[in-house]
This record gives sequence, C-alpha cells and structure tokens, in this order.
Amino acid sequence: MNERLKQQIDFIVEIDKLKEVYRQSILVDRSRRENDAEHTWHLTMMALILQEHANEPDLDLLKTLKMLIIHDLVEIDAGDTFAYDEAGYSDKREREERAAKRLFGMLPKEQGEEMYELWLEFEDRRTIESQYANAMDRFEPILLNYMTEGASWKKHGVTKQQVFDRNKPVQDGSEVLWQFITSLIDSAVEKGYLKDS
Amino acid sequence: MNERLKQQIDFIVEIDKLKEVYRQSILVDRSRRENDAEHTWHLTMMALILQEHANEPDLDLLKTLKMLIIHDLVEIDAGDTFAYDEAGYSDKREREERAAKRLFGMLPKEQGEEMYELWLEFEDRRTIESQYANAMDRFEPILLNYMTEGASWKKHGVTKQQVFDRNKPVQDGSEVLWQFITSLIDSAVEKGYLKDS
Repeated sequence: MNERLKQQIDFIVEIDKLKEVYRQSILVDRSRRENDAEHTWHLTMMALILQEHANEPDLDLLKTLKMLIIHDLVEIDAGDTFAYDEAGYSDKREREERAAKRLFGMLPKEQGEEMYELWLEFEDRRTIESQYANAMDRFEPILLNYMTEGASWKKHGVTKQQVFDRNKPVQDGSEVLWQFITSLIDSAVEKGYLKDS
Repeated sequence: MNERLKQQIDFIVEIDKLKEVYRQSILVDRSRRENDAEHTWHLTMMALILQEHANEPDLDLLKTLKMLIIHDLVEIDAGDTFAYDEAGYSDKREREERAAKRLFGMLPKEQGEEMYELWLEFEDRRTIESQYANAMDRFEPILLNYMTEGASWKKHGVTKQQVFDRNKPVQDGSEVLWQFITSLIDSAVEKGYLKDS
C-alpha cells in the first residue's frame, strides 16, 4: 500500500472516536445525549436545506460543507466544551489547537494543511461560509433544546440572556434564522423551557 | 414564519430520527453498534480525504457530498437492511421509495424533488459521483469490521465470497480502494475474522 493511502486510512480509523464524544444536547426522542459525529451530520443536512436563508445565498456550499465535516474533530482530544461553560472556554482554543495539530498531522502534509486551514477559518468566523456554518452549529442545539422542552437548558440552569448572547453570531450568517431563533427563545421562556433570568 | 422555512424546520426535526437507526457495524472501540447518522458523517469525511483515489478524481465533490448526506434518510422509515440479508433485499427498494416520497415530500416542492433525484442517482450508481459515493458506503463497514476483528461478520456467519460479491461495485468508483479492500479481505480470512467459505 502506498504511504499516502496508509496515512489516510489511519486517519479515517482514528476519527471513529468522534462517535464517542458526547454533547449536552438531548436527541428529539429524548433517549440519550447526542454525539459529535451525528451532530455534524445534522449540520451538513441543515446547511443543504437552509442555504437560501443565508445572508449571502451564493456562498461556496462545498467549502461550507468541508468546514462543517471537520469542525468538531478537535474534540476527539479536547472534549466537547458546553456552550455555557465559561471556565471550559478559557483554555478551549489552546486545547483545540493542539488537537488539530495532532489529528490533521496524521494526513499527508498538504492535505493536513488544507484541513487545518479550514478549521481555522471555521473558528475565526470572518468569511461568509464560516459565518453560515457557525449559524448551523448554534442553531441545531437550540432546536434540540426546544424540542425536548429545554432538557439541557434546565439541567444547567441556563438563562434567556445566556442563550441570546451565545447565539448572536447566527445573525452574521443568517438574519432570517436569527429572527426565527429569537422567536424560539421567547416561546421557550413562555413555555417554561428556559429561565427568564 | 414563512411557509418554506416552516417546512424546512419540520424536516430538520423529523430527520433527527436517523440518529436512532442502528446498523450492524460495531464502532472501532467496540462499545456499541453504529447508527446511520454517524455512519453518514464518516462517509462524508472519507469522501473528502480519498478523492484522489477515485477512478475519476475530477468528479463533482459537492454533488457527491450531497448524495452521501441524504443517502440513508429513507432508513428512518424503511430501517437498515443488513448488507448480507438476502430476504431483506427483496422488497428494499419498494420500502425505500415510499420512505423517500414521504420524507422528501415534507420539503418545499422543488427542494424535495432535488433531494429525491439525488437519492435515485445514488441508488442507480450510473454517474461517477454516485459510484464514488457508493464506494465510500461499502468501504466503511469493511474497515469497521476489520478493526473489530470481524465482529459483525462473525455474528452473522458471513463468508469471504459474500463480502467479495457484495462489495465489487467499489471498483466502479475506485480501483485503488478495491485493491486495498481485497487485501483487507485476504488478511481478514488469514486472521480468522472472516470465514473462507
């Protein structure tokens, strides 16, 4: 077997671990917590379906999908940081940088570099594709929370203001989705899924 | 909320069920069976990484990813049919056609039609993108089986000939990967992961 293919296969086997990185979100049927691999699939599906609502609908969808597909791989080493865990966020970037170097470093050099660049682009949220991709990443857990009557919001005592502040960047990717999310947040407070303060 | 967005959100919530469609493959860490959503994510990642080994490396990667992202949705209604279950295959297409119509029918009309066409294209394996996408779909369970010492092959008494016959279409998408798979199959027999006959 050629050396490139060997490196690629080793990487493909290694990242199977993403299926065992569990998040705080609960599945719609409330049977268990969601893992990063299935979360990622859901985001790619949403990105396909919701493109027309992006602020820039002519964005490069292939690049968006690539970013989404790889965006959580670093959590294989760094673990999932809960969106409302402030302490966890203090060294998140550093832990994730290390993980990105190790994981993407398993690939043939130029391929690993492409993946690393895509990951940085996603994290930095400066391009229209990364802004739209990040909108998907924030919208999905809100939707799961709403559908499960605020299961993980309640568990962690999350407030309306926290959800609002954390998810505001959605509007950089999609004003339409941000409007929808704010209506969900209001409805969640009204129904008692989310604390008002 | 506009009607299109409402239909799209209902679809996004409905397909959360893909995370609860379990396959016969066992995760590399052997903790449990894999589900369709995480399987799909793994295929999209593989398609990104292995494109250079496609028979036609200049294929349309965006179309390939779209096909992969939606290819197993029909199993929400139709269930997963184990690759070596001949009885299950007799009415598979009919069950899946019904599922495709219901699920994609939830979307705005032209969007649902696009998804339905992509699904048919994947199933028919006549374009270079669908052949490459199908190669990913067959390669991944072989890799998981090999990494788990043939866990699901052993459980179901699968033979070398069955694996060979079932997976031959990989060569339409990638001769390189087919060569690699045949070497894995031989090695699996040698190590006792797979029955010779």
